[in-house]
Order: sequence, then structure tokens, then C-alpha cells
Amino acid sequence: MPDTDRFDLVVLGAGTGGYSAAFRASQLGMRVALVDEGPIGGTCLHRGCIPTKALLESADVLARVRRAREFGVLVDGSIEVDYAVVAARRDAVVKRMWTGLRSLVKRNGVEWVQGRGRLDGPTTVRVALAGEDGTPGGGGERTLEAHDVILATGSRTKSLPGLVPDGTRVITSDDVLRRGTLPASIAIVGAGAVGVEFASFFHDMGTQVTLLEYLPAIVPLEDADVSVVLERSFTKRGIQVITRARFDTASVVADEGGVHVDVGRDGEAGTREVRAEVMLVATGRAANVEDVGLETTTAAVDRGIVVVDDHMRTAADHLYAIGDIVGGLWLAHTAAHEGLIAVHTIAGEDVEGMDYAQQPRATYCRPEIASVGLTEAQCADRGLPTKIGKVPFQAIAKAVIGGEYEGFAKVIAHAETGETLGVHIIGPHATDLIAEASLAMVLEAQPWEIALATHPHPTNAEVLAEAAMAVDGRSINF
Amino acid sequence: MPDTDRFDLVVLGAGTGGYSAAFRASQLGMRVALVDEGPIGGTCLHRGCIPTKALLESADVLARVRRAREFGVLVDGSIEVDYAVVAARRDAVVKRMWTGLRSLVKRNGVEWVQGRGRLDGPTTVRVALAGEDGTPGGGGERTLEAHDVILATGSRTKSLPGLVPDGTRVITSDDVLRRGTLPASIAIVGAGAVGVEFASFFHDMGTQVTLLEYLPAIVPLEDADVSVVLERSFTKRGIQVITRARFDTASVVADEGGVHVDVGRDGEAGTREVRAEVMLVATGRAANVEDVGLETTTAAVDRGIVVVDDHMRTAADHLYAIGDIVGGLWLAHTAAHEGLIAVHTIAGEDVEGMDYAQQPRATYCRPEIASVGLTEAQCADRGLPTKIGKVPFQAIAKAVIGGEYEGFAKVIAHAETGETLGVHIIGPHATDLIAEASLAMVLEAQPWEIALATHPHPTNAEVLAEAAMAVDGRSINF
Repeated sequence: MPDTDRFDLVVLGAGTGGYSAAFRASQLGMRVALVDEGPIGGTCLHRGCIPTKALLESADVLARVRRAREFGVLVDGSIEVDYAVVAARRDAVVKRMWTGLRSLVKRNGVEWVQGRGRLDGPTTVRVALAGEDGTPGGGGERTLEAHDVILATGSRTKSLPGLVPDGTRVITSDDVLRRGTLPASIAIVGAGAVGVEFASFFHDMGTQVTLLEYLPAIVPLEDADVSVVLERSFTKRGIQVITRARFDTASVVADEGGVHVDVGRDGEAGTREVRAEVMLVATGRAANVEDVGLETTTAAVDRGIVVVDDHMRTAADHLYAIGDIVGGLWLAHTAAHEGLIAVHTIAGEDVEGMDYAQQPRATYCRPEIASVGLTEAQCADRGLPTKIGKVPFQAIAKAVIGGEYEGFAKVIAHAETGETLGVHIIGPHATDLIAEASLAMVLEAQPWEIALATHPHPTNAEVLAEAAMAVDGRSINF
Repeated sequence: MPDTDRFDLVVLGAGTGGYSAAFRASQLGMRVALVDEGPIGGTCLHRGCIPTKALLESADVLARVRRAREFGVLVDGSIEVDYAVVAARRDAVVKRMWTGLRSLVKRNGVEWVQGRGRLDGPTTVRVALAGEDGTPGGGGERTLEAHDVILATGSRTKSLPGLVPDGTRVITSDDVLRRGTLPASIAIVGAGAVGVEFASFFHDMGTQVTLLEYLPAIVPLEDADVSVVLERSFTKRGIQVITRARFDTASVVADEGGVHVDVGRDGEAGTREVRAEVMLVATGRAANVEDVGLETTTAAVDRGIVVVDDHMRTAADHLYAIGDIVGGLWLAHTAAHEGLIAVHTIAGEDVEGMDYAQQPRATYCRPEIASVGLTEAQCADRGLPTKIGKVPFQAIAKAVIGGEYEGFAKVIAHAETGETLGVHIIGPHATDLIAEASLAMVLEAQPWEIALATHPHPTNAEVLAEAAMAVDGRSINF
């Protein structure tokens, strides 16, 4: 006989967006249930950001060890990778953070419901409970009634039409993050954030990397100047980069010997054969909108994503949606921000709506990339007059000290109003440095105000201050 | 026969404060001369921040190499330091940045005057020019007349009364930064920023370190919680830390065998002998106020520093002073900020006066320390009611991934107004992360506003957002 419970809020999906929403709702005094068939932490913790960055950290250590001599540290003997240790550390990091999250469920007084949830109308969630032994559906059904529901069922890897990952020769990021061995060579399809992170990682680890991108630039969503620096850096390191890559997915051959496919470049005659032990498909993700009961509500789904307003409301009263299922940026921290907006809206607060232009983006290849706001091209498309400050890391003492000074910071401001329109950083610690730019955007700080804040010397953070000053032709150290 | 030249501005002293002022003044259209008997860059570039951080970078590489195995990177064979390479890299970094600065003098159209300058009245600077071959005073004299003068003559190392550095057994930071060899053991007197940076560095390099601090806590200017974490970390690493250290400077014996001194602890009976190959005196600096001609002006000097108002004006019209000679924080970036305030004031702009509470402080030991604003104790002293958010780095995924998650971020806000009073960070990338807090202070952002800015995941920068949320009991990942 099904249990029925009443909650103020039921959150369906316990990824970063879901658990952030659940914890905050509980902090605001709501009675909250958090439902997921998988472990808390979702894609980001178990199959995304966290294990990937753990792998990249090992790659960074390796790169640093290889360069140790120039810093006066002599390593006598061979330097080798024990990939079993790399993979075990990756898994240990995930486990540690997962343990932390489970304790936070308790600390926040959120009720954890392990099982597959499905909407039955906008404010009812039927959960096929996991059994004692974890068997999906083995624990019967429980019906949760809620005043409000937040849908946060996330996304899954997706491939190109006609190219079906087999988990062995043609793989996805999920497969990489499960594997305990390195391929000798890899062809990566797609040079977005996931593709370039893995390209950087595998190359460091000694795998021969070919990176295929359909568009004319790698990291095509970033500012064009960033793409240029990254492609130059990758090519110099020995990663084979093929932009404007064209191939027929049906012609990809995967056999005992590996994968091969003939690849041409748009606008050029002829093709060359790309051969690799495995092919990694990094061409984006698909939202998990199916089989969650959306058809029992009036919520709309358009081109595979749930339609929401800027306060994360679906068309169905009391039903909200956040994270990858609403498209947007497909980023964990953005999902968390959406979750907080939804919860504070549910709490009746007058909260600022979602503004994707204020969401930072971070890519952990080497050099790192991070950005917030508009690219120069987007400004041009919108007819916005701009003034730009761009300062290379080689002008920044701390970057020179660190021995990694490829890249730059670029601040784009409105030429007339002075408004900060976009900040783009490629170089050391970029992913940490963008936080300040993110704060500046939220507070509507103009470049001269960023420059007014003293940036400690010597730090990588000075690059932002210098670029902000450069907007008005007033940089000091460049 | 002496040359006389008229300038809008003469800047006497070409350290970070001086050159920043000179470059900006030129950008504002002034005709500017920059005078120094030494090379552009001053203490920070040649005997301070930059060479120290270069040494610390080598120490960091060494520490990372030693831990490589846990990241899956196997180093087969011995790991050794070639200190000649460490020192050569230190010097190469300095030279590279120095070359950059010299080209910026030209690019900014500033006239470089190599020689020893001395005020002759508030707006006249007489320069004993260096000769063609660089001989001090060998090039005759040149008299510079200016509408305004900025004095930025910096500071020098200073010792304790009765303890005279001999450059061999009893040394200063200047000596460390000239040396091409490592001592087997070192006793460091003074656990401020300079003392703890060298303690961290020498210990990593294999030198046995004893750190002596007169006060009850190391890094005594930082928040007490920071001191506790650092002392624990240092002690765990094997650095011998003696706080409340008392010894008679006259009893320090330096001979062929090294240095030894009997050290007691305040409030405890008995002493123990501290022996080391060298003793590093890191007990502060003295401002260069002598022999710069201040007596030819009405500018006031009080307890060894030049007295200025919050726009860096001395008591003499048209004479400004910035940097270490005005005391304050003795930090390069603060000197630069003071320099910009002076220049914009000279340009007749209505510029915000100097507020030392908005100046960030950065210390590059491991773990790194950075802070801005008031400590908890300072708030208590001023009777300010506080609410505090403190989040450890072990709650931050990126820190766990990096394998260095000692430390925390602590945000102190006014309990009633919500104003951000202080931010204290000890842990990975602290010195970069404080820039965001610095911007928050300048923009008068409250903790909830810091939290409103999305911090990319996973980054070390998240620690600040979490601590900001924790101020109101609303952290998500802790």
C-alpha cells in the first residue's frame, strides 16, 4: 500500500541544482524531500565536473613534474604514469565529496528519498523506491504530495546522428570516467569545454590526440581571441586540431584495430584518414525530459527542454524546473543558481530573475579558460559599441614566476555607457579569477571600478585589474 | 654647469608606487620625470616580492613533485634541488620583469633620470647623475623643477636593536635574495609575512627551520584563526615554531660554527639554545626618509615616516609622499594605489581618499594567506557587533581535487548593518581569491551580494561564496 507524505517542496533530481535547492529550502523553513534514483551529486559529481577535474589535476602534476628542472628541481630517473592510481584517486575524490553531501542532507534536515520519481500532476511525485539492497523499484512505491515541486532531472551524454557509442571503441565522457586504462590514441569529436578538457588531459598523459571540430574554431562559444590562443597552444603541444571537420558518421569504422574515419575540411578538397584506438564523442548532452511525467502537467517542452520563465516557473502552477532540463548553459553552478532562484521565488521573496549573461563559464584545459558575459562577436552582432582592454599574462609578474604565461584577460565595455559587457580570461588560474568578474557583473561595476579595487601584488588576479584599466588606455604594467 | 628642466611632475623613487604614479601621470597628459639611483622596480622587484615569490615557486614545484605519487605520477629515482638553478631562475624572473618595466618607461613617455635625487625645497629635485658607466654621481648634477613632486623613496631592511646583520651569519632578506646557496639550518627572527614566507621556503628546500616570534601568534597581524591554522600546519610539516620568544640580542653569538642564542618563552622559566647555520632577521623595515632633503621643506616626519593626509599630501604644498616612506602597510600594491591617488589628486580630480581597510594583504607561505579589512579581534576592540561565516576548504571540491585543503575562508559582517568588515582566507590560491573580496569591499557589497554572484564550480573561489552565505547560516556545501 503506497505511503503518502506531504511536503512543502519536493525536488526531483539530486544533482548540484537539485540539492542546492533542497538545502536552501530547508534553511528557509520548508519541509523538503529530495528524490533521486542515483546518488546525490548527479552528473557533476559522479560523471562530470568532479572526476574530470580530478583527472586534469593528475595531468597538471605530471606536466609540472616534467618541467621541474627549470625550477631547479632535479628528478633523476624516469617519470611514469600509473593510471590505476590516477583513476583510483579520481574515484576517491568523488567518494569523499559524496560522503560530505550525504551528511549535508542530514544536517539540513532534508528527507532523502531513494528511487525513481515521476510526476503525477504538477505537485505529486510517485517514487518507485529502491529496495533495501538498492534494487531499483524493489522497495514499492511512495507518493509525495507537495505544495511546490522542482524538477531537476538533469541530462545525459548524446552522440551525433548515426554514431552510436559502444562504450569500447566509440565512447562518451561517461565511459572515460569509468575506465581504468589509457588509450594509446584518441580522436575526440567536438571541441567544446568537454572536448578540449579531455584533449588537454589525454595529451598530457601521453595519448596521441586528434581533436575534430565542426565549427571554424575550437571552444566556439568563447571569444574568438580565446579560441586562437588555445588552438595555438594545443598545436604547439602536439595535439592535432582539425577545425571545420567534415565526416560521415556512417563511415566511422570501429573494429579490433581501433576506429578510423575519413575526415575532410569544409571548403577544401580531399580527406585524410584519422585513426585512433578510441573515439570520444563530446558533442553535447540531452535533457532528461522523457518519462518524468511531464505529460501529466501543463508544462511545455520545446526542442527537448522544459520551457521556464526567468524565475524557473514552468507553465504549470507550482511546478518549477532547473538545471540541464531547461537548457541554458548546462553548467552545475548555473543549475545551483537556478535552484536558489526557484526556492526563493517559492518562498515568496522578490528575487532577481535568471540572467545567463551573468553566469561564468569555466574550462579546465591548460591554459584554463573562463568567461562571463558577451564575446566581442556577440557585442558586434547586437550592434553594441565597445571599448576593449586586453592584457597578456606575460605582463603579470606572478604568471611569469609560475612559468605559465600564455593567454590574456580581455575586458569588453560599452563604449558609451561604460557598462562591463564581458570578461574573457585564458591563462593561469582563469577559473578562479573569473569569480571576481562575475561579482563585478552582478554589481554592475564598470571597468574603472574594478581597477579601483587594489589587487594584491604579485598575483594572477592583477591581470583583470590591468585589463580593466586598459579599457581606458590606463594600464600600468602593460 | 647644472641643467635645469621643468616638469609637471617629478617622482623621486622608482619602486612600484613611484613608477605607477609616473606612468599614470603621463597617461593623464603630464610631463613626467622619474628619478632613481637604482633600477626601476625598487625593493619589490629587486629585493622583495618578486624574487621571494620566484623562490617560493621552486619550493612549490618541489613539494608537488614529492607528492606526485598520490596523483598517479611515479618519479623513479631521487629528487634533488639544484639551488644554483633555483637562484638563477629567481634572477631571470627579476630581469625579465625589469626589462618590461624599462620598455614601459619609454612607452609611457616618461623621462628616466638615473641618479640620486634630493629635494631642494618642495618642488625642486637635485639629481647627482650616474656616470656613463653607472658610477653614482659620476654624471654631474641636474636640477629638476616641477609643479608637483611625489616622494617615493621606499624602505630598507631593519634589524633589532643590538643585532647587527653581518651578511654572512646574521642576514636579512636582502642577503637571502643575493645568495646562491642554501644553509643547512636557519633561525628566523620574526614571523610576519616575510618571516613565514622564508620559513615555508627554507623548510621545503630541506633546511631545518626555527621560527622565533615575540608575540603570542605567528602572522600576528592576521586574524587569530588564521594564525592557529598556519602554526598547526607549520608544526606538522616540521618547522619549529617558538612564539612569545624572548632572547637578548647582545647574547647572539655568531662564529665559524654558525649562530646560537638562548631563547626563553615569555611566562615560562628556563631557556633553550637555538643553533643554526644562519640567523635571518625579519623584523620589519625602516623608511628611507633621511638624506632626501625633507628638511628643505615643511613636510613633517613622525617616528620615522612622512606624515601625509588621505590624499598623500605632505604638509608642504605640491609635495606628496607615497609607499613605504608613509608607513601604512609596507606593500607594493598599496604603494601603487597611493601613487594613483596622488596623481589623480594632482590632476585636480575628485578622487576617493586612501582607506587602508580596503587594502588586501597577501602572504605566500604554504598554505597561502590573504585578507582584507578587519580581523575578528579588531572588530571586538572597536565594539562592532559581528556575524561570521567560516567555511573550510575541505568542503570545496576543487581544493580536495588539488590535494591541498587546509584552511578556510572567513567573512566578517556587521551584525546589524550587514556591512562586510573583513575577509580572511588561508588555503589554496588565497592570494588570488582575495581580489574578489577587495572588489567587494570597494563596492561596499554585503555578504549576500557576494553570494548572489555565481561562482563557477568547481573552483577554489567557491570558498568565498560559501563563507558569505554562511554569514546568514545559508551555506550550501558546508
